[in-house]
Amino acid sequence: VTVTVALAGGVGAAKFLRGLCKIVSSHDLLIIGNTGDDLELYGLHISPDLDIVMYTLAGVVDETKGWGIKDDTFHFIDSLRNLGFETWFRIGDRDLATHIIRTKLLSEGATLAEATAKLCKRFGVEAKLTPMTNEKVRTKILSDNIIIDFQEYFVKNKTENEVKDVIFQGAENAEPAPGVIEALTQAERIIICPSNPILSIGPMLTIPKIREAIIKRKAETVAISPIIAGKTLKGPADKVLRSMGYEASVIGVARYYREFINRIIIDRADSAQKPELEKLGFEVTIADTVMKRIEDSVNLAKVAAGSS
Amino acid sequence: VTVTVALAGGVGAAKFLRGLCKIVSSHDLLIIGNTGDDLELYGLHISPDLDIVMYTLAGVVDETKGWGIKDDTFHFIDSLRNLGFETWFRIGDRDLATHIIRTKLLSEGATLAEATAKLCKRFGVEAKLTPMTNEKVRTKILSDNIIIDFQEYFVKNKTENEVKDVIFQGAENAEPAPGVIEALTQAERIIICPSNPILSIGPMLTIPKIREAIIKRKAETVAISPIIAGKTLKGPADKVLRSMGYEASVIGVARYYREFINRIIIDRADSAQKPELEKLGFEVTIADTVMKRIEDSVNLAKVAAGSS
Repeated sequence: VTVTVALAGGVGAAKFLRGLCKIVSSHDLLIIGNTGDDLELYGLHISPDLDIVMYTLAGVVDETKGWGIKDDTFHFIDSLRNLGFETWFRIGDRDLATHIIRTKLLSEGATLAEATAKLCKRFGVEAKLTPMTNEKVRTKILSDNIIIDFQEYFVKNKTENEVKDVIFQGAENAEPAPGVIEALTQAERIIICPSNPILSIGPMLTIPKIREAIIKRKAETVAISPIIAGKTLKGPADKVLRSMGYEASVIGVARYYREFINRIIIDRADSAQKPELEKLGFEVTIADTVMKRIEDSVNLAKVAAGSS
Repeated sequence: VTVTVALAGGVGAAKFLRGLCKIVSSHDLLIIGNTGDDLELYGLHISPDLDIVMYTLAGVVDETKGWGIKDDTFHFIDSLRNLGFETWFRIGDRDLATHIIRTKLLSEGATLAEATAKLCKRFGVEAKLTPMTNEKVRTKILSDNIIIDFQEYFVKNKTENEVKDVIFQGAENAEPAPGVIEALTQAERIIICPSNPILSIGPMLTIPKIREAIIKRKAETVAISPIIAGKTLKGPADKVLRSMGYEASVIGVARYYREFINRIIIDRADSAQKPELEKLGFEVTIADTVMKRIEDSVNLAKVAAGSS
């Protein structure tokens, strides 16, 4: 039986999960990963958020960058560049093994969930990681009259486009991956990791059955704010919240999640916002949410899992 | 109009073609490459012989090994090994760019000939290189009651299996690639490069239309013996000739090609065999066939093209 479900985006989630995996048994945990920012490149299926979590839990992540594999080289992608191809999405040579195996498994008929499970096993990751859906959901950024693929916005354009709207193409009709709804229904707690609420968690919350399942478990759902003192440590969460009409603050995060969560964990730096959050009906826990060392992740995980 | 057609296998052919390309215009030349030893690995389509020729003509080949790209690294394949996959076929990180682009082009509906042309263009190779066929032909080695895929025999087992027979699966029904028959029919000369007669040239000679076209042009066809003083410089040509009932000598090579060639170029070391070859009806040219420097390749090309 799944005791804890974690909804995860990329780097922030992965750091948190590294701590969570130290305090909960892998049998009791299901990590649901965002696949809205998956992409097909050079014929390969790439799942950046699933990979960041997998590499982090496997202990092979490049900790400086937060993604990719440590000590990786880039000879493959540089060769493509020399051959005249666009190479703004940097794929490392070791990282490539993952994409090639995933692509092969999918081409042989495996679902993305099955491919993810097989890859996790190869990487020695014991925690169960599943994509939110086996179907194709693609996050698109609507900017000044143009629609931009997520990775193009995120990596190629370095999040410089103004975000007018975010579209999760395919999410409205996507079926959750096997086991996702059961876990959300049975779990003692659901943790929304410190990820970009709109871009990383938004795709999951847009899949109708996942959305409904979490709404029903609102009392057991907690989110960790990725916004600290009005800013994100990494990525454009603050910018995107503002663009979409939310404050770039713990208040904005809580409002975005208002249908889904009962409790929010905010950083000590945002203590002053506690009364307002409580007035809005949230239970508030103050914690140290900046995760520099593994101990920070473990401590935050204890707070989120309610055992601290 | 194609003036010269060259039938090419791997390393030996590539070295020879490097010289040939110096003395003939790329517009006048068609190189027909063996695809019997192509393989699918990790979902990738790999064409080792086409790549050896392309890399050599592009000047990027690893000259020490004769295949692959110079200064390449092997982090991708080592990662696969660490993940528990079989990795006896070593793919370099830079080399991988070729296989990924080829696989993508094929998956989008390109023929192997079209994919090869696009890759050659990217690599700046001006000579026209075409696979013998766009269809799937796979060389299989029949050993003691087991059938072994060519690369498994060649790379994994290091040619240690006894060869009872060689099967070119699919060759009997394969259509030559576009332009192949026209070129063979019109060319002023057809050169069989110094490649393994049975394993590298055999697949082409087994495709009925190519076989018939060359037989008709026997008078204009010359082969360069890959056997020098009873041995090959590289690969198992001598062993395989013996296994298949031919002498491992220039006589064996000439006999294998007897239906197809009028003239054979043999190394100075084999001068003593000239009278016997002439008695068998071959025109014989003695030359230096060991190609260490580019000048050696150019000189041999001049002999083969009849301009020396």
